[in-house]
Amino acid sequence: MSLTEFDLISQYFNNNPVAEGSGIVLGIGDDCALLEVPDGHHLAVSTDSLVCDIHFFSDVSPYRLGYKALAVNLSDLAAMGAMPKWVSLAITLPEMDESWLSEFSRGFFELANKFNVALVGGDTTKGPLSITVSAQGVIPRGLALQRNGALIDDLICVSGKLGDGGLGLACKQKTIALENEQAFIDALELTEPRVELGILLRSLASSCIDISDGLTQDLTHILKSSHCAAKLDLDKLPLSDSLREEIEVGTIDKQRAYQYALTGGDDYELLFTISAANITRLNTLLEKSDVTAANISVIGAVTLLQQPLIQLFDDHQAVSFSLQGWDHFR
Amino acid sequence: MSLTEFDLISQYFNNNPVAEGSGIVLGIGDDCALLEVPDGHHLAVSTDSLVCDIHFFSDVSPYRLGYKALAVNLSDLAAMGAMPKWVSLAITLPEMDESWLSEFSRGFFELANKFNVALVGGDTTKGPLSITVSAQGVIPRGLALQRNGALIDDLICVSGKLGDGGLGLACKQKTIALENEQAFIDALELTEPRVELGILLRSLASSCIDISDGLTQDLTHILKSSHCAAKLDLDKLPLSDSLREEIEVGTIDKQRAYQYALTGGDDYELLFTISAANITRLNTLLEKSDVTAANISVIGAVTLLQQPLIQLFDDHQAVSFSLQGWDHFR
Repeated sequence: MSLTEFDLISQYFNNNPVAEGSGIVLGIGDDCALLEVPDGHHLAVSTDSLVCDIHFFSDVSPYRLGYKALAVNLSDLAAMGAMPKWVSLAITLPEMDESWLSEFSRGFFELANKFNVALVGGDTTKGPLSITVSAQGVIPRGLALQRNGALIDDLICVSGKLGDGGLGLACKQKTIALENEQAFIDALELTEPRVELGILLRSLASSCIDISDGLTQDLTHILKSSHCAAKLDLDKLPLSDSLREEIEVGTIDKQRAYQYALTGGDDYELLFTISAANITRLNTLLEKSDVTAANISVIGAVTLLQQPLIQLFDDHQAVSFSLQGWDHFR
Repeated sequence: MSLTEFDLISQYFNNNPVAEGSGIVLGIGDDCALLEVPDGHHLAVSTDSLVCDIHFFSDVSPYRLGYKALAVNLSDLAAMGAMPKWVSLAITLPEMDESWLSEFSRGFFELANKFNVALVGGDTTKGPLSITVSAQGVIPRGLALQRNGALIDDLICVSGKLGDGGLGLACKQKTIALENEQAFIDALELTEPRVELGILLRSLASSCIDISDGLTQDLTHILKSSHCAAKLDLDKLPLSDSLREEIEVGTIDKQRAYQYALTGGDDYELLFTISAANITRLNTLLEKSDVTAANISVIGAVTLLQQPLIQLFDDHQAVSFSLQGWDHFR
């Protein structure tokens, strides 16, 4: 059966019920969506594109692609402390493929429904496969987490584990062979946006960013914006059980594992700075909440501005690594 | 000189000064933009993608592409009566090309600055050329123009001229040879979004849409949403002087010219329904305003629901045409 563009859009993307309190005055089906930002709140907007062969492999499951296209944007909103509300989705695909769209929308809406995010518009066009998502969230005025607020002696913290996303990519690219390959690929493709943690951090963290390009590169954004430097303790970098197993069996050496944790990218964990007083408050809040999966690790501290911006220590010894993030045009 | 992605973004897209009253709390450079929707207003959001070889030719001037990528979204906002405020821009391009980006951003900002629209975020990725723009505007609560408000006996009106955009496309595709080719290509590529007219129509029109897929197809959206039908007078369709000249010299016959006006697409004029009382008010407002370029034409009237949804008349005689809009996957 051949569907027209309009049928296609309505079949897979227009059947999302508009919930009470969603703030949607008018959803999909007119020239624009009409949305209501609650009084006393700012609107937070994030836009990201995923392009085939750059951000994902052509053999990726459409379910996982739909999931991740939304996840990376929700991660940006989380890094500001915003509550995600609405999303627009632009899909370019080579052919009308119903089973592909069905799976893509299943992955997309699984994550959207988890966070009560409503699809409010978008565009479907024919062409080389790519996805652009623009997500909108709301945040009480004055409470947004920015990059430029880090203070000397603040602790540097991350959620979750580091390096698995980058290792998943290396596994897909066959540049590394690991025992737990599927676990790393899952970490790459089924990113968990730290939405609840971002909201908890609103009045506690001094700065925040999500790790998309690798810890050191994203930390550098905070440091440059905040005019300070950092020391990081390698032995405090949170490595997953899967990665620790690989080190034990010798499929990767420790230094290379650290390098993935520092520069691998695609972790989509929150990286934030916080005062010693506030991390105690945060831990109390975390104990009372169900944001346990986020597992905060203290990995270093903010220092006076100096060069290099990031100093690495391993068991109190200064060490040096080649650090390189992810730069699409390099 | 080779630029990294970050330098590239800041050089061409981060130098847009944030004006007073722009509602931008935080612009480009953090995980999200932070925006302030004025109290008592709704947010209107529109997202459109332009894909190379589908929506534009690979030889299009980057200046015109930058202009049009924004214009089609501002046209959607205009169709709701929204005041455009902010825009996110996702560019996928095969290679870092500074002269291309320089020209693209020149066209984009020429239109953005004309309407005081600020670029607040986006994404730049490597891949097959495509552009996705998500534009946001604001509108006083309750005043948005929707598709579903047309009433029996309302007049059907359009702004500007019809058919030139579609003829411009046909000229580019070499499926037609015309004397005034450049004028039609200009109409296709240098679309004028009817922002001021949309704002004037807020409390006057009963329904509104912008013509992107052709008059009959877009009118059908209004009619289906409003549960009514329409009669259109072919001899009242506004044709440009360029098109009238082509008919006179015989490079296109009148019937084919009407067909472009009815189904050509890419006109980006406003199509709206309005009561006879309100069109008098509109004309008075238009006389006092500088929205003269929009030149409203009354082309028909809303009728009781019947099939076919659109009845065409030429000099009071019912006529029949093959009507077909633009459907990307057909």
